[in-house]
Amino acid sequence: MSKLVIVGTVAFDAIETPFGKTDKILGGAATFIGLAASQFNVDSAAVSVVGGDFPQEYLDLLSDRNVNIDGIEIIKEGKTFFWSGKYHNDMNSRDTLVTELNVLEHFNPIVPEAYKDAEVVMLGNLHPMVQQGVLDQMTKKPKLAILDTMNFWMDIALDDLHAVIKNVDVITINDEEARQLTGEYSLVVAARKIHEMGPKYVVIKKGEHGALLFHDDHMFYAPALPLEEVFDPTGAGDTFAGGFAGYLASTEDYSFENMKNAVIFGSNLASFCVEKFGTERMQNLTKDEIGYRLKEFKQLTQFNIELS
Amino acid sequence: MSKLVIVGTVAFDAIETPFGKTDKILGGAATFIGLAASQFNVDSAAVSVVGGDFPQEYLDLLSDRNVNIDGIEIIKEGKTFFWSGKYHNDMNSRDTLVTELNVLEHFNPIVPEAYKDAEVVMLGNLHPMVQQGVLDQMTKKPKLAILDTMNFWMDIALDDLHAVIKNVDVITINDEEARQLTGEYSLVVAARKIHEMGPKYVVIKKGEHGALLFHDDHMFYAPALPLEEVFDPTGAGDTFAGGFAGYLASTEDYSFENMKNAVIFGSNLASFCVEKFGTERMQNLTKDEIGYRLKEFKQLTQFNIELS
Repeated sequence: MSKLVIVGTVAFDAIETPFGKTDKILGGAATFIGLAASQFNVDSAAVSVVGGDFPQEYLDLLSDRNVNIDGIEIIKEGKTFFWSGKYHNDMNSRDTLVTELNVLEHFNPIVPEAYKDAEVVMLGNLHPMVQQGVLDQMTKKPKLAILDTMNFWMDIALDDLHAVIKNVDVITINDEEARQLTGEYSLVVAARKIHEMGPKYVVIKKGEHGALLFHDDHMFYAPALPLEEVFDPTGAGDTFAGGFAGYLASTEDYSFENMKNAVIFGSNLASFCVEKFGTERMQNLTKDEIGYRLKEFKQLTQFNIELS
Repeated sequence: MSKLVIVGTVAFDAIETPFGKTDKILGGAATFIGLAASQFNVDSAAVSVVGGDFPQEYLDLLSDRNVNIDGIEIIKEGKTFFWSGKYHNDMNSRDTLVTELNVLEHFNPIVPEAYKDAEVVMLGNLHPMVQQGVLDQMTKKPKLAILDTMNFWMDIALDDLHAVIKNVDVITINDEEARQLTGEYSLVVAARKIHEMGPKYVVIKKGEHGALLFHDDHMFYAPALPLEEVFDPTGAGDTFAGGFAGYLASTEDYSFENMKNAVIFGSNLASFCVEKFGTERMQNLTKDEIGYRLKEFKQLTQFNIELS
């Protein structure tokens, strides 16, 4: 079974949407990535940091789903990273209300010995130097290194970001971030420029409009499943990345053709994530539900025109 | 060969984009619809009105492509409808600079006798009473009546619009207009409400994000081909509708399964339309180019996951 190292935040989120609001609930990129990847036959490990205030039951929730938590450092005297945000009515934009870095401020990731030879590394959204720090600990070059990032790091640590982007095979980034990173409005041109920065594969996430996968001159498009209601978009991008990474690690096939399947699975899992607050939907998601939704994705996209 | 009646504007456009600007060039919904439909094996006729200032060569351009122009009335002493617009940098929004209705103000559409039994009627964007007027002239109920409209008619003629919507099989509408018409943000819910207004099939156009086809509880998604450059979006929606209508009329198969193919062809043709100003690209488009792009659409969307 392939090993998958996941680095990212494990956090408290407090979320407000037009449908309601939560107290502090379980959140964080590594959490969503781990829960999504746990749907596949893969030996994954989360690398993160939490404070003494982080409930054991949240850690159990991950390890119960076969996400190894040896790499989640607990700083007893510290407090867990906390993010609070409020979504606007269209659910496509949000305001950050609170960001308390807490233990994340001096986070020094430690990859557990047993995972230093992992086939796949998923670098969730964090400071690019932390992401590079994880890559540096790998004793064997991973078959696939995937990086997720956001505009925040482009604003304050662009050189570090460029340095780590150079070292990964795949980048997942949203449309606005791809535009910011390249100065190009056209996503086709933006993807080409990102290719030139290093990654052979570029995934541009467009939220409710799906995701585009680019490789050389090839493109593939995974739609988002149109939903009656998006309840809470928090974690959808991380869930997408976790499904993408988990599927690829489990199939051990890192070809472009198989990456098409991986973005479909990423989009599949993300479509569940947004149905409830935080991780709630991902906690009780079954393989049958994923299989049924895969059929829906096929019906949504597959057509049969004879080329004359 | 099936007959297709197309009603809509035949016009002068003056367009400004970040790439340049034009003088008065050929435009209008019926023009774009007709040029797109002419790519298919269909006997189509345009119903419209122009002024004495409208060049014969523009009319020839349509009839050379087997679009019958007997239903294009020429009012010698009148002036042709003129629209001028300026696109913003992102190409997704535009300002209308000039709208001169001219001969369109008192347009009374006349369907040529030979086309009153047409199998397919494509009601391009016009006052809903004009659209209804065309339906009323059909001596045989069309196998498929398709209606395109815009927010302008929702603002000033909503009751008339509801009256004609009730009488068509398919509506093509953009996402913002679907939201305005129904008061629903979710396109899935909006489509259901539009179904209840009459049309069994609802096509929601999302510009660079493609188009969604709804029928009962079924959905299909046709992406837009991601392009390096969108030169001029004018007419893309009409070209989409023309490709959709032309394909369906030529295949004489009005099933949901075949409509999937029709929206792919609509998206295919629209992807060419935006490559040059106005109708320029559509004038010299070949069947080989369309066939090659169909392969690109397949590569963009088709995947092969075995359901276990």
